[in-house]
Amino acid sequence: MNVAEQGANFLAEIHEQPAALARLLEHRDEFRAVARACVNRDPVALRLVGHGSSDAAAAYGVYAFGLLPGWTALRDSISLTVYYGAELDFSRSVVVALSQSGSTPDVVSYVERARKGGALTVAVTNDAGSELAAAAEATLPLAAGDERSVAATKTFFNELGALVLLAGMAADREDEVVDRLKRVAELVAREIPRLEQAVAPAATAFAYVGRMYVIGRGIEFATAREIALKLTETCRVAAEPLTSTSLSHGPIAALDSMFPVWTIGSRDESLPALVEAASRVREAGATIVASGSAANEIEGAAWRLPVPEAPMPLLSPFVSVVPGQLFAGALARAKGLDPDRPERLTKVTRAQ
Amino acid sequence: MNVAEQGANFLAEIHEQPAALARLLEHRDEFRAVARACVNRDPVALRLVGHGSSDAAAAYGVYAFGLLPGWTALRDSISLTVYYGAELDFSRSVVVALSQSGSTPDVVSYVERARKGGALTVAVTNDAGSELAAAAEATLPLAAGDERSVAATKTFFNELGALVLLAGMAADREDEVVDRLKRVAELVAREIPRLEQAVAPAATAFAYVGRMYVIGRGIEFATAREIALKLTETCRVAAEPLTSTSLSHGPIAALDSMFPVWTIGSRDESLPALVEAASRVREAGATIVASGSAANEIEGAAWRLPVPEAPMPLLSPFVSVVPGQLFAGALARAKGLDPDRPERLTKVTRAQ
Repeated sequence: MNVAEQGANFLAEIHEQPAALARLLEHRDEFRAVARACVNRDPVALRLVGHGSSDAAAAYGVYAFGLLPGWTALRDSISLTVYYGAELDFSRSVVVALSQSGSTPDVVSYVERARKGGALTVAVTNDAGSELAAAAEATLPLAAGDERSVAATKTFFNELGALVLLAGMAADREDEVVDRLKRVAELVAREIPRLEQAVAPAATAFAYVGRMYVIGRGIEFATAREIALKLTETCRVAAEPLTSTSLSHGPIAALDSMFPVWTIGSRDESLPALVEAASRVREAGATIVASGSAANEIEGAAWRLPVPEAPMPLLSPFVSVVPGQLFAGALARAKGLDPDRPERLTKVTRAQ
Repeated sequence: MNVAEQGANFLAEIHEQPAALARLLEHRDEFRAVARACVNRDPVALRLVGHGSSDAAAAYGVYAFGLLPGWTALRDSISLTVYYGAELDFSRSVVVALSQSGSTPDVVSYVERARKGGALTVAVTNDAGSELAAAAEATLPLAAGDERSVAATKTFFNELGALVLLAGMAADREDEVVDRLKRVAELVAREIPRLEQAVAPAATAFAYVGRMYVIGRGIEFATAREIALKLTETCRVAAEPLTSTSLSHGPIAALDSMFPVWTIGSRDESLPALVEAASRVREAGATIVASGSAANEIEGAAWRLPVPEAPMPLLSPFVSVVPGQLFAGALARAKGLDPDRPERLTKVTRAQ
């Protein structure tokens, strides 16, 4: 394989995200039926489980369900139930299990136990014939289509979509959320070519970077997790996602001029905290990459990758994740790595 | 200040941990009264909030409350409530807010809102006169005493103690948990001098390390978070805490021979997952530090720092955190850094 082909799937799948989201929206009827069942359960807890990019998406679910139907959602501990056999009360819980392949062993075990304990269990997966789909009471399609790059992009994008669609329906705001999702898909489709050009010079400058922090807060913490994961998987950068607050409670001490920080600033209630954290990063002498719709409000950034505002603040991660994905692809190439086939990773992770 | 004095408080406070825990146990009556109020609330969710080491301790609380009274505990999102104003149902929740100083602004705001929303709010802090104590319905003493090192040790230790004591009482297992806590304090007091010697050669060998992963699973994930935080704060190492599963879902790709991994293997149900993760780390050529009571079951470790088994599996973090604290202190000295005064950190973090 020649260098030009490296990462061809990864890049193609980033481009395909708007189409993947449009495909997801063709399944509104299935989502509506499950949303109704969730509402009927009157849940005291919505438990999200998944690993890797699916766990990053779960962090978004906490906000989508918290802000739309006002439900307490949590990234639940799989090991508490699966390994330690804790006897939790699942009877008024809804479980949403996220897995591209539907084959992650401990996610399947978790769903089996939660269902036995009385939870309403919902699998969200690309494979309706998977073990996970068989274990759960209801299955919703991710509709991301075949994902050939090991590093996930459109799967994450559609996981965000599935979560906010379900949350919107549970809050009786289906039409509004669907309309905004369509608009966000159009917006992302328009922006990708420009962003692909914009990330290139920054990526070249980062060819020798070995560690980074990726800072987001609130709704954008999921984005920070996903961008850090892409940088780690495809570029072998030790990129750690942090909230702006966590940064100030310790990691700020480790920064220096060789330790760049990617910040995601979106125009919402968490922005002042992010701007303050960025000013501390600057004082530490670290290079800042400012991304997000409020990228221009981050002072002293060496690189700026602004994106337009999303048509609804809750949808900002759909837009702000894209520069991170494209940057990871470009940086992998600059480092001579193949983002389609990261070292030691496989598409389906069987690790417990 | 000469080099011999650097980190004197940090080291003294590590040594003081067993005495601090014994002090906490003198407050049994206060804890019992609060535990009774928690049980009366019949909570559907126990919400833990805190930053830095307190957030690491909160990760332990998920297991302590899950395994003892069988309650669903979560590290709640502060920003969802404080910044975004989500309207969650707090009426059948208990909030446990952890803060050494009791002055962390957004933790105080969270408690005010949760209390207004009907939660039973409990502050656990070293300062009974703090804003946090004023905001909460009940206050429990951390009893860690004056902590002079910026990098917390005995505060974390007593936060673990406070959480497991409350959980044990809620499960009607007070006498058993108190007995085991006394035994763990004795055990740690005995082990510290030996461990202090044991960490020194490894710390010297790590003087030029810039990044690490710290791997724990289940009950030991809290320990992994706290050890990673100590390494980051005091040694300026970008140390990221990961579960063994998260490691396999991405970060494993970033490892190489210059990227050491600290593993915490304790003899419980999660050990096979940890052993498997360590074998992947070894295949990647990374240097392994094996700690925990099952350190000797991690194959191919370059350094081993085994500890005795805790008198109850749930108490293993009290023992396994100690080599990490001591290693951080020794590595800071090897790097010429002062663990008492990490760069850019202050004892009370006002950052939002």
